[in-house]
Amino acid sequence: MSSMNNAVNLDWQDPSKATLYGCSSCQSSGRLDRLPADLLTSIGQSNPALPGLGRMTAGMMLAFTTDSQILDLEASLFEPPLLNHMAATGQSGFDLYRFSEGLWRFIDVSRPSLTSADHGYRFNLPFSADRMGRYLLYFPLYNAVKGLRLKVESGAVCHAWQPYQDPPVLIYGTSLTQGACASRPGLAYPAMLGRKWGVAITNFGFSGNALLEPVMAQAITRQVVSAIIIDCEANAGAADVLESRLPAFIETIRTVHRQTPLILVSRMPWLGEWHDQAFHERRRRYHRFQQAMAETRQDIEPLLYLSGEALLSEDASACTVDGIHLNDHGFAMLADQFDRLAGPWLVRQGILKQKGVTSCEN
Amino acid sequence: MSSMNNAVNLDWQDPSKATLYGCSSCQSSGRLDRLPADLLTSIGQSNPALPGLGRMTAGMMLAFTTDSQILDLEASLFEPPLLNHMAATGQSGFDLYRFSEGLWRFIDVSRPSLTSADHGYRFNLPFSADRMGRYLLYFPLYNAVKGLRLKVESGAVCHAWQPYQDPPVLIYGTSLTQGACASRPGLAYPAMLGRKWGVAITNFGFSGNALLEPVMAQAITRQVVSAIIIDCEANAGAADVLESRLPAFIETIRTVHRQTPLILVSRMPWLGEWHDQAFHERRRRYHRFQQAMAETRQDIEPLLYLSGEALLSEDASACTVDGIHLNDHGFAMLADQFDRLAGPWLVRQGILKQKGVTSCEN
Repeated sequence: MSSMNNAVNLDWQDPSKATLYGCSSCQSSGRLDRLPADLLTSIGQSNPALPGLGRMTAGMMLAFTTDSQILDLEASLFEPPLLNHMAATGQSGFDLYRFSEGLWRFIDVSRPSLTSADHGYRFNLPFSADRMGRYLLYFPLYNAVKGLRLKVESGAVCHAWQPYQDPPVLIYGTSLTQGACASRPGLAYPAMLGRKWGVAITNFGFSGNALLEPVMAQAITRQVVSAIIIDCEANAGAADVLESRLPAFIETIRTVHRQTPLILVSRMPWLGEWHDQAFHERRRRYHRFQQAMAETRQDIEPLLYLSGEALLSEDASACTVDGIHLNDHGFAMLADQFDRLAGPWLVRQGILKQKGVTSCEN
Repeated sequence: MSSMNNAVNLDWQDPSKATLYGCSSCQSSGRLDRLPADLLTSIGQSNPALPGLGRMTAGMMLAFTTDSQILDLEASLFEPPLLNHMAATGQSGFDLYRFSEGLWRFIDVSRPSLTSADHGYRFNLPFSADRMGRYLLYFPLYNAVKGLRLKVESGAVCHAWQPYQDPPVLIYGTSLTQGACASRPGLAYPAMLGRKWGVAITNFGFSGNALLEPVMAQAITRQVVSAIIIDCEANAGAADVLESRLPAFIETIRTVHRQTPLILVSRMPWLGEWHDQAFHERRRRYHRFQQAMAETRQDIEPLLYLSGEALLSEDASACTVDGIHLNDHGFAMLADQFDRLAGPWLVRQGILKQKGVTSCEN
C-alpha cells in the first residue's frame, strides 16, 4: 500500500486545490466563521451567544478531486465533544462523501477524541486507476475548527471541484438546522437537502438562538443566495418573540433579496404535546400566525409557508433523541418530506433543476 | 408541583413493584448479567471478552405502573461512555416509554455524564388523575449497571406490570444486535422489534464477539424462549468461523429447543463493498452457505433464512454511522424490513399474534 512518508499538503485555503462552501469570513479573515466578519461585533452585542455559535463549522464543506488512496486529516478543534445526546462523530467529526455513478456515497467519518480537542484521522479512499475521485468533506456540526491540515500521498494530484455552482440556499434556524443530533455532519437535514437538491446549503442554524435579531437579518442580506428558508419557531416561539420580530425580520431581508424565494417553516410537533395541551395550543397559534402572514402579505412574496406538522409523517417516538431534537431517522424523514413539499415549488421558482438531476452530474 | 422530599423507593428487585426482563442471573446472583451465572467461567475460558460484554445491560428492561409525576433515577455504571460514534444516551442512558392509547410513546432518556460513571436523572412523567401510567424503562446498551435506585413521589403507588407474558424471542448477534449505534436504548433494533411484535426480546448481542462458541450455544439452551434469531455473520464471517461452527451451534440449540422456530440472518451489505470486490464475494459465499443450510437440513427445522441483503431497502449512505454500524435511521429500516419479512412466518409458527395486536393492549 501507499506510504505517507512523502505526503503533500492538500492546501484547503488554495482555491485551485479545493472549494470551500459555507464560510462567510474565510477569504477576508482566514477564519472559519459562518457570520460576516464586519457584523460580528454588533451581532455579539445583540446576542452574546451568536459569535461563538457562528464559529461552529456546521454546513461548511470542502470539495476536491484527487487520485490519492489516502487522506490524512489533522485538526485542532475548539473543545472536546461536550453534548451527551449526540455522537462525537456528529459534533466534531469530518464526514467524507464521494460522488460516483450518480450517487453521493458515504466513505467514512473521522473519529474524534472524547477528551481532547486535537483530532487526527486517516481516510482510506476508494481507488480506481482510471479516474480521479470527487469528494465532499463536511465539517463538524458542534465545534469550531482553529486549524486544519489535509495531506494526500506524495505524487497524488488534487484539484478544486465545484459540485455546486449556483448560489446556495440559506437556512436560518435552530439547533435542528445546525444539526443536533445527527450522528455525522452529512446527515444533518441541510446537508441531506443539499445532496438531494444539487445545491450548496448555507447553514445558518444557531443552537437555541434563532431569535430573529434585526442584525441577523442584516447578516442574511450579506449572503449571496438563491433561496432562503426560515425555520426558527422552536427558538423564537419558545422565547415568545416570533410574532413581534418575524415581520420586520423578513422585511429587512427583502430590502436586499427582493425577489429571492422565501420558505417559512413552522415548528414540528414536540412529543410532549400529546400530554401537554398548552404546548400544543401555542404551536397552533404560531401556525395560524405564520400561515396568515404568508397568505396576506403580498409585499413579501414569493413566500411559501410549510407547516412543520407535515414534516414528520409517523409517530415521532423513533424520530428524536429527546422528544425535540431529531436523530438520523428524523432527519432522513424531514429531508424527504421537505423535498416532497418544497422541492416542486423551488423548481417552479427556477431555483432547483428538475428533480433527479444534480448539478454535479453534469 | 410535587416534592421529592419524601420520595419512596420503587424497588426494582421486588417482583410486586416491577417486572425485569432480559436478565439471566438477577434472581440467582442479584447481578444484572445477560449470561447464565453457572456458565460464566466456561464462557470466559472460551472467549475472555464475553463475560464483560454479558454484563452490559443491552435489552434489559423494567416494566411498572405508577401514578407518580416524577421518577428519579440514580445509577452507578461501570464506566463513563467510551464510544466516539454513538451518543452517550445510547451507551449509558435509561430510556423511558409509556404505553397509552395503543401506542408506545417515548417519554425521555436519561442524560449520562461524559466523564463519570455516576448517573442521576429526573424523569417528569405525564400525569392523568384518572389512571396509572404504564411504563417500560430500557437499560443502557453499552455499559454495565453496578447499582440502581429508582424513586417515586411520596404517596404514589407502584405495581409490577407485565406487558409481555409469553416467552421472549432471543436474538444472538453482534454489535448491531447489542445496539450500536442507536441514540437511545429503545431504538436498538431488538427493542424496536419487541414493541412492534408485542413480545419481550432477549438481547444476546455481543459486540465483536458473535463467534458461535459451543458454550454460547449451551447458554442459549438455558434460556426460556419462544423463538431464536441468529444474526452473527458480521463477526463469525469476519473471523472465518461461520462455516466451521454454525452447524454444530444450531445442533446444540436443537438438543433443547427442539421445535423452537429459528431465524437465520445473513449479513447486511457493508458500504465498502461497492469498491471492494473481495468483501462482496465473501458475503455472497456466506449467503449461499446459510441459504443451503436452511434449504437442505430438514433435521433442524423449523428454520427461516433471511438474506441480510433484503434488510436495508435504499442506498445505505444514510443508514450507518461508519459504513457498518447502523444509526437510528438504519435501525428503523431494519426493524420494518425484519417485521415485513419474518413477522408473517412467526405468526404462522404461532409465536406472534396477528399483526397490529400487541399483548399489552389486552
